[in-house]
Amino acid sequence: MKQYLKEDAWSIIEEGFDPANHEISESIFSIGNGYMGQRANFEERYGGSSLQGSYMAGVYYPDKTRVGWWKNGYPEYFAKVLNSTNWIGIDVWVDGAALDLAACEVKDFIRELNMKEGWLSRRFTAVLEGGKEIAVEAKRFVSIVRHEIGAVRYTVTPLNFSGELRFMPYLDGDVKNKDSNYEEKFWVEVEKKAAAGLSYLTVKTKKLDFHVTSAMAFDVLKNGQALELSQVFSEREKYVAAEAAVQAGQGEAVTLYKYVANVTSRDHGLGALIEAGTKSLLAAKEAGFDVLLREQAEAWAEKWKTSDIIIEGDVSAQQAIRFNIFQLNQTYSGDDDRLNIGPKGFTGEKYGGSTYWDTEAYCVPFYLSTADSGIARNLLIYRYKHLEKAKENARKLGFSKGALYPMVTMNGEECHNEWEITFEEIHRNGAIAYAIFNYVNYTGDKAYLSQYGFEVLAEISRFWEERVNFSAAKGKYVILGVTGPNEYENNVNNNWYTNRIAVWTLEYTLEVLNDLKNNEPGHYEALAGKLNLQDEEAQKWRHIIDNMYYPYDEERGVFLQQDGYLDKEIVPVNELAPEHLPLNQNWSWDRILRSCYIKQADVLQGLYFLGDRYDLETKKRNFDFYEPITVHESSLSPCLHAIIACELGYQEKAYEMYLRTARLDLDNYNNDTEDGCHITSMAGTWMSIVQGFGGLRVQGGELVLHPFIPSHWKSFSFKVMFRGSRLQVNVTENSIIVVNETDVPAAIRIYDQSYTVGAMGEVQAQRSAPAALS
Amino acid sequence: MKQYLKEDAWSIIEEGFDPANHEISESIFSIGNGYMGQRANFEERYGGSSLQGSYMAGVYYPDKTRVGWWKNGYPEYFAKVLNSTNWIGIDVWVDGAALDLAACEVKDFIRELNMKEGWLSRRFTAVLEGGKEIAVEAKRFVSIVRHEIGAVRYTVTPLNFSGELRFMPYLDGDVKNKDSNYEEKFWVEVEKKAAAGLSYLTVKTKKLDFHVTSAMAFDVLKNGQALELSQVFSEREKYVAAEAAVQAGQGEAVTLYKYVANVTSRDHGLGALIEAGTKSLLAAKEAGFDVLLREQAEAWAEKWKTSDIIIEGDVSAQQAIRFNIFQLNQTYSGDDDRLNIGPKGFTGEKYGGSTYWDTEAYCVPFYLSTADSGIARNLLIYRYKHLEKAKENARKLGFSKGALYPMVTMNGEECHNEWEITFEEIHRNGAIAYAIFNYVNYTGDKAYLSQYGFEVLAEISRFWEERVNFSAAKGKYVILGVTGPNEYENNVNNNWYTNRIAVWTLEYTLEVLNDLKNNEPGHYEALAGKLNLQDEEAQKWRHIIDNMYYPYDEERGVFLQQDGYLDKEIVPVNELAPEHLPLNQNWSWDRILRSCYIKQADVLQGLYFLGDRYDLETKKRNFDFYEPITVHESSLSPCLHAIIACELGYQEKAYEMYLRTARLDLDNYNNDTEDGCHITSMAGTWMSIVQGFGGLRVQGGELVLHPFIPSHWKSFSFKVMFRGSRLQVNVTENSIIVVNETDVPAAIRIYDQSYTVGAMGEVQAQRSAPAALS
Repeated sequence: MKQYLKEDAWSIIEEGFDPANHEISESIFSIGNGYMGQRANFEERYGGSSLQGSYMAGVYYPDKTRVGWWKNGYPEYFAKVLNSTNWIGIDVWVDGAALDLAACEVKDFIRELNMKEGWLSRRFTAVLEGGKEIAVEAKRFVSIVRHEIGAVRYTVTPLNFSGELRFMPYLDGDVKNKDSNYEEKFWVEVEKKAAAGLSYLTVKTKKLDFHVTSAMAFDVLKNGQALELSQVFSEREKYVAAEAAVQAGQGEAVTLYKYVANVTSRDHGLGALIEAGTKSLLAAKEAGFDVLLREQAEAWAEKWKTSDIIIEGDVSAQQAIRFNIFQLNQTYSGDDDRLNIGPKGFTGEKYGGSTYWDTEAYCVPFYLSTADSGIARNLLIYRYKHLEKAKENARKLGFSKGALYPMVTMNGEECHNEWEITFEEIHRNGAIAYAIFNYVNYTGDKAYLSQYGFEVLAEISRFWEERVNFSAAKGKYVILGVTGPNEYENNVNNNWYTNRIAVWTLEYTLEVLNDLKNNEPGHYEALAGKLNLQDEEAQKWRHIIDNMYYPYDEERGVFLQQDGYLDKEIVPVNELAPEHLPLNQNWSWDRILRSCYIKQADVLQGLYFLGDRYDLETKKRNFDFYEPITVHESSLSPCLHAIIACELGYQEKAYEMYLRTARLDLDNYNNDTEDGCHITSMAGTWMSIVQGFGGLRVQGGELVLHPFIPSHWKSFSFKVMFRGSRLQVNVTENSIIVVNETDVPAAIRIYDQSYTVGAMGEVQAQRSAPAALS
Repeated sequence: MKQYLKEDAWSIIEEGFDPANHEISESIFSIGNGYMGQRANFEERYGGSSLQGSYMAGVYYPDKTRVGWWKNGYPEYFAKVLNSTNWIGIDVWVDGAALDLAACEVKDFIRELNMKEGWLSRRFTAVLEGGKEIAVEAKRFVSIVRHEIGAVRYTVTPLNFSGELRFMPYLDGDVKNKDSNYEEKFWVEVEKKAAAGLSYLTVKTKKLDFHVTSAMAFDVLKNGQALELSQVFSEREKYVAAEAAVQAGQGEAVTLYKYVANVTSRDHGLGALIEAGTKSLLAAKEAGFDVLLREQAEAWAEKWKTSDIIIEGDVSAQQAIRFNIFQLNQTYSGDDDRLNIGPKGFTGEKYGGSTYWDTEAYCVPFYLSTADSGIARNLLIYRYKHLEKAKENARKLGFSKGALYPMVTMNGEECHNEWEITFEEIHRNGAIAYAIFNYVNYTGDKAYLSQYGFEVLAEISRFWEERVNFSAAKGKYVILGVTGPNEYENNVNNNWYTNRIAVWTLEYTLEVLNDLKNNEPGHYEALAGKLNLQDEEAQKWRHIIDNMYYPYDEERGVFLQQDGYLDKEIVPVNELAPEHLPLNQNWSWDRILRSCYIKQADVLQGLYFLGDRYDLETKKRNFDFYEPITVHESSLSPCLHAIIACELGYQEKAYEMYLRTARLDLDNYNNDTEDGCHITSMAGTWMSIVQGFGGLRVQGGELVLHPFIPSHWKSFSFKVMFRGSRLQVNVTENSIIVVNETDVPAAIRIYDQSYTVGAMGEVQAQRSAPAALS
């Protein structure tokens, strides 16, 4: 936990330079545009601790896996998003001395991430050897309009002397991943040129043959006047640079504009990369920094129009939620269905930038509500495209049919290797099925089912069909040897959530199947043929639905997380001595496993997903039982608890849970922000407000709201895109106002009252007291 | 499975050279003396596939551990027995051409491991370039009398030409471990000298500072006459050699005798190593090869006197059991309580040469019966000396008291890192306690308990006390999250064997405690003080004993391997399609885990250890239930099944089980003999005959026999050391004859009849028909 950032409604601001915070700031002040991303590394060289990170979405490396004891079925590699060519770099010398903030006095340092307009800036005064002072101002962004373009404006002003300023903008592909398993470098050089006008560098990955071409051009101005400078060019392996020197008088501002285009073989033929990069680059340079920046601000304004949340009366909360929305929108733009959302986005290497079930469980709801439905749809298409790989994965594990999606993946292949997770955390299949339901339920886009969704559902159902077995002892179907969402239990039998989501998948698949059969017989026939669907399969699914075993405690009236759960000693977390927490840093794994403590929502994950199938009393009994023994050591945990707490009217608990994620990275709550930001859990924070405090649900094609407001907030409002309309929901202590910002009328329900918000219309309602269950 | 060795009662013989078998033979023909060991690598260079292996007992390396995903509590290193200085090497040139069996024609190759006398020999004719033929004869051994000494006799005879023979005996410390985790070499040079008379090399390990000095001297004879030859010496890093050339006429035999002493810093001060090595070496050279060999044969005759098993009517079985006894005696000599028995002994690198519970469960019974009781006692002392480390290990895993012995260890510290084994296969603690009982029961040496045993028992009991928890749901104590002996289930609850052996430990500890209290109050007081033993502890242990939960199936009357076992689909192994077997090569780990299939005896391990507490009907029900679903994919599995099958009168099953281990390595049954021989499971084969076919038990201070004889054996006999006497037990179809070879009378029971076999006396009994239960 570390609070050093200034509170501000629209910006993240760091005042004063403390090298101890630098790597944390490098994560927090990251910029990205869904196509590429960049940690907040300094442009000029920096001798202190730093994690250099330039990432190109979808450009990854199958790093040789590391494992102690091999198990059959483990994947051969762990995919990792690549640290790519450093394109921001500008070495700076002042009268021959290199500028390096680790080697000089730094005054008046201020760093700002402007979330409203989407740029990063930095200002400081450096006191160099001999007392020479320079003022530096740097601003950069990656364009969300021209996604291959990044631009930097870098200004140096001698404050108390006149002298030579030398700049060396460069492209450096000789970079490595900090998390390389065998200290390997992943890039080799293909081609380069350093020359007047434009320099470029093409590198490719040692495996998979991803090519990235970075092209750069730059201008230097003094006091706003462009200079014609003689340049010195240098090249070395995977590196090109240009160097130019300027004589600057005291108080004269010298500005370097660096424009870079990064293009990859994912989008261009190998022979066309340099041309594509050059074209993009020259167009951007032609437009110029200020135009590009204006485009950027306008495009961000559009994003905020559909996704902003406004909190009145709590700047800290306001800043936090905007930071989360901003990072989510920087990470995934939804225009490329080959991409997904790594748990750290473009802010670090951890988790390899791969796809987890976080996407379906947390991110899909965010994009569904805050952007055009095509964005979330592309996240679904991503999995559809991986269906064949998921079938192969199931075969590899010995299943004769069906699909098991990977726990961690880049291209559809599994790349995690802990047997208890890789092979056993199969509930992920349920979340992927659920996302299809969620999407269709939210958007009403039923055509998705016949086009893509049903195939995925059917193959997942086939997996469940084969994965269950009939227990003669219980006279029921059971699912043995799984790990549920609570990864603090491994290889358990009959994890309630897994059993439940498996049966739910079968139910939904049958529902869709029957719907298609009855309403789209042509589509149905085609799909049945393609899938070679047998009547007996549907019968078997029905039989499993009707005969699944669910562990349940009659006495307490709670679903049991797994068969043996009640054999554990159950002691609430608040009775544990504080030095035991967090458990994952203080306890051996076996101790954690046999303890009652829960890492993240498990039974409650089911009660969240299938919320309309369980009454409040049931939710309350389970929440009251499980929440006190939950340690929330996954960043994905508190948000779900916040949402259910809201439903139960547990306002204080809800707000406590909300606080645990809201400023997770800004306040470095888990002491790990230097590794990158918790991007996917940011969607959870958004959910806490919109689904929790706002009580937003979609039921029967209606948008349902059931808001409450944390006691010290004056008001909060959020945007919701819903079936063509865009609504702003404003909640105060006494009122709820829904404004329709579009011409499309929307059906909504507030508490138990239904309304239609007409084109550009507004609806007002009284805010009710919360449900009082306790 | 590969059968290429000739059957012989006293020797292992390979006729003809097939490079494809060479690494298997390198394992099988290994020689050792408990202090050092040597794979059957060739003396001369060999360009084909080979696993070079020279091992010094107790000289190990803490290799940086390899793990995919770190868990709290994992050890930092994996200890591995070191491949040490190659001391057997003699490069040979014939008229300038190097002798290399991978590069010439080989005729009349014969390799012999003479188990009666303890040596390895090899003869062959090599046809070199130009058709020059030489006859080569090599014989070597490591002395079990002078344990630091190895000797080689190497004779070359030109058969169809006269020419120059050049020999270069050397010491090469520039060796590596094949299983080095990071391709590292573990040795650095300390000192060396290559000179007339004597050369030496001292190397030390990069970590832990083990020093090994090897000193060599040699003689060359032609036609039996010693030659004075000029020598050329060479040195390079970690390497010394001497070179001598001899002109040999056709038919003239030139013999090189190479003597080596290997001494280590485990036994000598660092400053005294060279002197110690020199002294040993010169004494050996002075004695000469023939004297050393005679000493060796005589010493092996003594070993066979106490351990031989004779099988009449089955040479294959005779050879196999002698091979097993021979290898066990080569591996562990019992005179150094810092040493133990690696699963591969000195025959390979696999399992790191570390100590497993194999020692207590399998090896202790062998040494108890076939050698002086001090030998087995030293295996117990080994664990006693590790008690403090075992307590530290328990603390590390979060226990406030008690001791958890490591699953895999060299010096008492854990060095395995799979959580499901390292942290959860805690039944090993039970086997270590059981070995104490076994030793005292067998030898009657009750003094061991007050001196060493009770401390270990008490600390293990304390561990169990804290490791159980009271299940409110069951109203019983439970043990959650364990892996039993069947490693094909992980992280299960209430593994019957673990629960049972835990309670047995508590019972036995209390029995010993009360016995000490009543009969050795002085010792008891001292121990209670040392251990700070509290009265409540004994009360707690009693409470656990009286209230432990054991999973049980009323319907079948069988103990359940774990709580959820009956939820599995139970299909006998013989109904599995053969291509699925072995499961560990064909199934993913999760599939194995949720299957019913059992790797090795689990419930039956308990019924074996605690055999006198369960009636035959109970054993039969459990055997009938579990054996058909056991895949015996551990080499330790079949022997226990053989023993219980014998008890139940299942003669065919017993013999089938016996066959699965008897020639495991000789016939390369598991296709892994090239990695080394299955040394610890060899003790299991011995148990199959002595405890299985012989029915040997010790009950109430009496040796009990209950023999049967496999149908096609004429007779079998085995030796048993028992409380000062040495008995030979001879079993034929109709009779049992027990001969006392000592002056100490022995009380024995044959079937239900008690006898005393007087000094040098004999007892005869009729052999009964087997119990017919089925």
